[in-house]
Amino acid sequence: MFSSLIVWMDFVGTVAFAISGAMVAARKNMDIFGVNMLAVLTATGGGMIRDIIIGRTPPVMFLNPSYVLIAVLTANILFLVLYSRKSLPLSQRVGEQLLFWFDTLGLAAFTVDGVFAGVQAQHGDKLFLIAFLGVMTGVGGGALRDIFADEMPQIFVKHVYAVASVAGAVVTGLFWRITAEENIAVAAGALTVIALRYEAVRHHWNLPRLR
Amino acid sequence: MFSSLIVWMDFVGTVAFAISGAMVAARKNMDIFGVNMLAVLTATGGGMIRDIIIGRTPPVMFLNPSYVLIAVLTANILFLVLYSRKSLPLSQRVGEQLLFWFDTLGLAAFTVDGVFAGVQAQHGDKLFLIAFLGVMTGVGGGALRDIFADEMPQIFVKHVYAVASVAGAVVTGLFWRITAEENIAVAAGALTVIALRYEAVRHHWNLPRLR
Amino acid sequence: MFSSLIVWMDFVGTVAFAISGAMVAARKNMDIFGVNMLAVLTATGGGMIRDIIIGRTPPVMFLNPSYVLIAVLTANILFLVLYSRKSLPLSQRVGEQLLFWFDTLGLAAFTVDGVFAGVQAQHGDKLFLIAFLGVMTGVGGGALRDIFADEMPQIFVKHVYAVASVAGAVVTGLFWRITAEENIAVAAGALTVIALRYEAVRHHWNLPRLR
Repeated sequence: MFSSLIVWMDFVGTVAFAISGAMVAARKNMDIFGVNMLAVLTATGGGMIRDIIIGRTPPVMFLNPSYVLIAVLTANILFLVLYSRKSLPLSQRVGEQLLFWFDTLGLAAFTVDGVFAGVQAQHGDKLFLIAFLGVMTGVGGGALRDIFADEMPQIFVKHVYAVASVAGAVVTGLFWRITAEENIAVAAGALTVIALRYEAVRHHWNLPRLR
Repeated sequence: MFSSLIVWMDFVGTVAFAISGAMVAARKNMDIFGVNMLAVLTATGGGMIRDIIIGRTPPVMFLNPSYVLIAVLTANILFLVLYSRKSLPLSQRVGEQLLFWFDTLGLAAFTVDGVFAGVQAQHGDKLFLIAFLGVMTGVGGGALRDIFADEMPQIFVKHVYAVASVAGAVVTGLFWRITAEENIAVAAGALTVIALRYEAVRHHWNLPRLR
Repeated sequence: MFSSLIVWMDFVGTVAFAISGAMVAARKNMDIFGVNMLAVLTATGGGMIRDIIIGRTPPVMFLNPSYVLIAVLTANILFLVLYSRKSLPLSQRVGEQLLFWFDTLGLAAFTVDGVFAGVQAQHGDKLFLIAFLGVMTGVGGGALRDIFADEMPQIFVKHVYAVASVAGAVVTGLFWRITAEENIAVAAGALTVIALRYEAVRHHWNLPRLR
């Protein structure tokens, strides 16, 4: 049950990350081609970095193009809607809520995915490595998006985002090592990400900074 | 005949990409060392990313330093000319025309090269992968150049550039799979890139954007 | 004796590079989490790129977390001191001197390390490759730091920095190939980096630039 849940969360995450890439590209006044490229980069970049780090070459995004196709479809539908109506067929508040939930589910799915990519590559006994892989898969696409859009990566500012991914990755790795039950580890890790993101936004959590 | 043509196009592309890297570095007020580093990065970065993606490590640029040497020579000759004369020994119009043709031949050569690097790595049956490798080899160096110069990558703006590379890569891959004739695939792919770039500039083609 | 010296220099370099990452993050108004992430990226990023280039996956920073731990400890101590006192418990002049020496020892250690990582991966006979690996290990972390902080990499501007790394890497590689004595090669390469940096700062050396 949970592994099919993860497939659905991956789908939702790919759509959400493609939307966030396309939105940044539109804000930067890129044309439809740039919108597609940034959507694909945001949706697949984290997994690509992860695969290069564990030596799984070519990365899975090149062998199974379905995630690239989902990102391209998403970017073009969004572009067409914005191009023809000049606005989304949703109130802004509902749109932001939807994007928050898509993005949060995507972060949870990609973080958990990254941990299990490490487990499948026979690194299940290296908690530090697999947690890092989870975080890179979760936040890497967004970091590449911002670097290519010539902005400071939001993961350094939107702090609870990366913290939620770190916590979820560690929880996933720990539960996997203790229970050896994939379903339990997936559920615990994903719920950690979701709960932290939800609570952080609801309570306006902030980490200290110097100035 | 065609494979020696490709070697010449690679040479021309390396020179063109080194020039574009050196020009950006000079505009950013880097010193002669920065000019050299950005020229090398622009000329060899796309192939380096491609090799890492297909797991060909160390990348060929480290094993055969001739392309780095060509880039360094180009950058220093350009630097010396600009430093001593404060201008190029060409009218600006001729200079821009030359750079356009160098850059276009380079894009064509690098795109086709990338596709065949995938074929040589036994991925000839994966059209999606080899087309992606062609595009990355063609536009990756320029993207790295802009990221290191702290600018938004021109490939997201100068759209017909990346579109020409995508079309050329797909044509190369398709002709290779259909005819299994390297010469035909190389010629068809390279001509696609060149024709698209030439027509796009001549007719001021533009892709839609939101604002 | 020298290999234990290198371990100490690596330690010093990790601390110095973590400090420089944390300082840039603080200047960019990142919170404590961003400060940690940028410190880790600066301290370990060069070695990560090097390992990916020679196909040593997963990179050693993921298998031996001690350098990540040193970087995290350094970043948090610095953050706490700055947070509680709003100033360092040193005069600014002494602080800058200390940072210069830390940074220079770190550059020397990482450059020499990179060369020997190439030697260990059976590439000792390829001088061009191992010199490149040394430079990437030495300056790669700082380049990633600046790219993630949305600034132009200092290695393109602070020129004697990268030049010192290139010279040190070539000297290390040459001495290794001529003498086959690791201690001699390490000492010669590290001293080259340190001497060049010291002399360049003392005499305000500058390379030519166009404007």
